[in-house]
Amino acid sequence: MASGEDDLIARYFRPLATDPGALGLVDDAALLTSSGDDLVVTTDAIVEGVHFLPNDPPDTIARKALRVNLSDLAAKGAVPAGFVLTLALREASEQWLAPFARALGEDATSFNCPVLGGDTVSTKGPLMISITAFGRVPPGMMVRRTGAKPGDRIAVTGTIGDAALGLHLLKGQGGDPDTSARDVLIQRYRVPQPRNALAMAVRDHASAAMDVSDGLAGDLAKLCVASGVSAMVRLADVPLSAPAQAFIAKGHSGIEAVVSGGDDYEILCTVPENRWEPFAAVAQDAGVQVTSIGRIEAGTAAPRFLDAAGQPVVLKRLSYSHF
Amino acid sequence: MASGEDDLIARYFRPLATDPGALGLVDDAALLTSSGDDLVVTTDAIVEGVHFLPNDPPDTIARKALRVNLSDLAAKGAVPAGFVLTLALREASEQWLAPFARALGEDATSFNCPVLGGDTVSTKGPLMISITAFGRVPPGMMVRRTGAKPGDRIAVTGTIGDAALGLHLLKGQGGDPDTSARDVLIQRYRVPQPRNALAMAVRDHASAAMDVSDGLAGDLAKLCVASGVSAMVRLADVPLSAPAQAFIAKGHSGIEAVVSGGDDYEILCTVPENRWEPFAAVAQDAGVQVTSIGRIEAGTAAPRFLDAAGQPVVLKRLSYSHF
Repeated sequence: MASGEDDLIARYFRPLATDPGALGLVDDAALLTSSGDDLVVTTDAIVEGVHFLPNDPPDTIARKALRVNLSDLAAKGAVPAGFVLTLALREASEQWLAPFARALGEDATSFNCPVLGGDTVSTKGPLMISITAFGRVPPGMMVRRTGAKPGDRIAVTGTIGDAALGLHLLKGQGGDPDTSARDVLIQRYRVPQPRNALAMAVRDHASAAMDVSDGLAGDLAKLCVASGVSAMVRLADVPLSAPAQAFIAKGHSGIEAVVSGGDDYEILCTVPENRWEPFAAVAQDAGVQVTSIGRIEAGTAAPRFLDAAGQPVVLKRLSYSHF
Repeated sequence: MASGEDDLIARYFRPLATDPGALGLVDDAALLTSSGDDLVVTTDAIVEGVHFLPNDPPDTIARKALRVNLSDLAAKGAVPAGFVLTLALREASEQWLAPFARALGEDATSFNCPVLGGDTVSTKGPLMISITAFGRVPPGMMVRRTGAKPGDRIAVTGTIGDAALGLHLLKGQGGDPDTSARDVLIQRYRVPQPRNALAMAVRDHASAAMDVSDGLAGDLAKLCVASGVSAMVRLADVPLSAPAQAFIAKGHSGIEAVVSGGDDYEILCTVPENRWEPFAAVAQDAGVQVTSIGRIEAGTAAPRFLDAAGQPVVLKRLSYSHF
């Protein structure tokens, strides 16, 4: 009786749908029961050839699809509540779906963000996974892009630029790092590390926050526009991984590719000076590296990026755009 | 400063984002404030070449994308609260986006289901619009597929099969109705009429409900499996539009294509006998045609479909499947 689509859902996704709100994936809809919290809703899609490469392993594609959304929830100070996904596939192959679903389930469990429902459709084009994720915050407590004030520190989590360099390597566009450095950078492109462990600290201390998805420079510019402020960033303070430092030292890439490359999925936030110490302390307890890279300034000029000598660096490109 | 993608969002979608929860589409996430209600979440994608045709007008594509989701909310007894969309486009053309966004905004307004956010990505493949829609129901009141009981009437809204016949015509697969009949059937394929006006009646009186998207026969079979029951449907009672009746009378299609064709986006629900009169009365007040087409029966056999003489009709195909 069951169709191919139902079989596919039953076989690969029903085992993941253990949350009561998923209704076993046998209904038309999922249910998020009221908790009195506000619900933060984010939607991000990843497309084959754009956000992942055709020969990326299915397990890393699953993790990336979920994690780019988890990253938004973290930046908004929200605790994950679940997600729904749309999966557009050319064919339903066991070889692809089994590891995809397994990895999705593992991430759903480890980030405590259960699958609640979805839709599976056929396409003749590139694979696409669109996820809408939900997070909870106490009423009125979602951290927005709009609260940055002159004098606030600008902070980022983790390291910046690894994913862009990883993509550069995957596309064979140059650079010859040793194998382990290469693996680190490529893995950072394929599997982001969303900073959900920092969500509470962001909610408690940040004046504004967003996740870095299209490139640090462009995303900071967006945050500044939303807050009606300007900013100064010391490029030398932008945190780089050892492989990224080596890559740049060898001349394979400049700082521009690092700060405009995108796919970082780190948190960019602004923290008032008097909140910096408690913020940094909580981040350390949470095991998340945070680095102060500049200051919010008054005005509406585009953010300035300064080199080690304090001279402005003009970036030709701020971020990735689809169109 | 703004990228092409930001321009596109600002130009076409920001004017639609008047709900406070959309945060003007300038944040990473949308906000659904707590109302104490449960939140019903549904996600449905439509793909060029599958759910709509490459030369379908952009305004009908927008309406279909939203309405297939509104239909799910209606069947669950939920009042629309908003939606997010993922739009996968090959190019950002004014000619396509302007009517698409205008129609989406009109439907959002008329169904009181505001756009809250979204993601726009580029693809080299078919266009795809994935929407996740939210509805509110009082705690515990979502209508599920699981509550049908032997003796309940089986009811459907509107008429069945029009969309499947419209697709048949669009594909040039035969039939020669007059122009107005042709237009009616094609319009029913392109622009479903979700029965949100009936949501309260479904919530108050139905024991189980779902929307008919993949074909009446297959969808009823799913509802029966979920409820642990069987069913009997009188095919002669399945409501057909005048154009569909003429189509069948001329021998261009059989009843099988009608009950297994899909894309109806009508509500299929089961109503206890003692609730039928009030249900039908409320439906009449709401201006939605409801028709009793059969009964839920005990057992777990597949639903039976009887012809006018009471003889079983064997359907070769129950519904559309993507894989």
